[in-house]
Amino acid sequence: MKFSSSTIANGVPERHFVHDDVPGILWLPAARSGPLVLLGHGGGQHRRAPGVVARAHRLAALGFAAAAIDAPGHGLRPRTERDEHFAATLRDLRAAGEPIAEDIARYNADLAARAVPEWRAVLDALLEVLGPRTVGYGGTSLGTAIGMPLVAAEPRIGAAVLGLFGSPGLHATAARIAVPVEFQLQWDDELVPREAALALFDALGSAEKTLHANPGGHAGVPRSEVDSSERFFARHLT
Amino acid sequence: MKFSSSTIANGVPERHFVHDDVPGILWLPAARSGPLVLLGHGGGQHRRAPGVVARAHRLAALGFAAAAIDAPGHGLRPRTERDEHFAATLRDLRAAGEPIAEDIARYNADLAARAVPEWRAVLDALLEVLGPRTVGYGGTSLGTAIGMPLVAAEPRIGAAVLGLFGSPGLHATAARIAVPVEFQLQWDDELVPREAALALFDALGSAEKTLHANPGGHAGVPRSEVDSSERFFARHLT
Repeated sequence: MKFSSSTIANGVPERHFVHDDVPGILWLPAARSGPLVLLGHGGGQHRRAPGVVARAHRLAALGFAAAAIDAPGHGLRPRTERDEHFAATLRDLRAAGEPIAEDIARYNADLAARAVPEWRAVLDALLEVLGPRTVGYGGTSLGTAIGMPLVAAEPRIGAAVLGLFGSPGLHATAARIAVPVEFQLQWDDELVPREAALALFDALGSAEKTLHANPGGHAGVPRSEVDSSERFFARHLT
Repeated sequence: MKFSSSTIANGVPERHFVHDDVPGILWLPAARSGPLVLLGHGGGQHRRAPGVVARAHRLAALGFAAAAIDAPGHGLRPRTERDEHFAATLRDLRAAGEPIAEDIARYNADLAARAVPEWRAVLDALLEVLGPRTVGYGGTSLGTAIGMPLVAAEPRIGAAVLGLFGSPGLHATAARIAVPVEFQLQWDDELVPREAALALFDALGSAEKTLHANPGGHAGVPRSEVDSSERFFARHLT
């Protein structure tokens, strides 16, 4: 893991790194002993999307470290032919008013297969830098398409905030998850059918899981859910 | 409104009252200017059920006043022939392993028609005693069968915690509610079909409504939801 530069925003040091060609950021608050939360960004976003940075800063205020990396084909990562093909397909389907949920699910599964080993390698390296500590994962939409197989595969992750996603292809993976999960659902999500998201929550194997559903579209998660997710992490990681 | 006696439990004064033959309790913390939360008990319970008292004490710790009354046919209230008939029907259906959701919904609608005017009269009297303040309502199960028509009818109620209930007969009433609602749902509720509860949440007219679903049966709402409901009241009533 190579740290290239360090900046400070809102009083929180941002340490930029690259690990096996994957660019990422580590937000490390003054109280350096808190849990680490891995933050997954949404589709079309990247490690430094405003929503990711805002969550990292709020976690830092609680004494939590946070880290984000660019998903394959996102941010500074090169786009493969498959990535370009998906973007074009999505554009065409949207223009034609066709349903896109299945294509998104298929592409996201493809991204997840590439992203999970990357996250696990980055986590290895981060815990070497930071020393052992409890770890959480927070990411919705694409951040859940990637995060759900990550949480299922990675025993060091002790709690996760997921949601804004649904895909029958993930049910078996969801069933293998045993750690506490807070699952966000937007009741009027224009990208994720309500039934698909409810079914994915239902499939989660965790004895302790909670569904938070609110009115509005995919991008309309209310601020109170950000507060809630922080309390969730504080409850389960500290 | 006649106050008959006053006791103190956990440092919170409990003032017992009777209003038009309806017995109730007012919990009034030292900081007397906070909001008032009306607490509805569940089926077969009463104004002083342990869950009601616990919620009242926790609200008092936040500076909130709270009040509960016995629903018709509950606690100290006389049971009518209809109440007795329902209890016997429910017992028989349960013994036979028959579904009981429809009978519960029908009986609860009957109780609600009696209880809503009682709550409104008690609220009139309480606000005379306490002086004007913001008002919330919290009650699940029977507390929602009664609470939903109460919140729809009573413009002084500014926020409500409801849930553990579902009934197509309440959809039109739910649609008239415009205040913020936090709606609790137990994912494995043995008394309330999941789809019926989801449909009742869906029917709520409130622009700001949030569904909190957790695994477990009707009586298994996790402690974190009590915390959440208090934050919800604090957010919307203060």
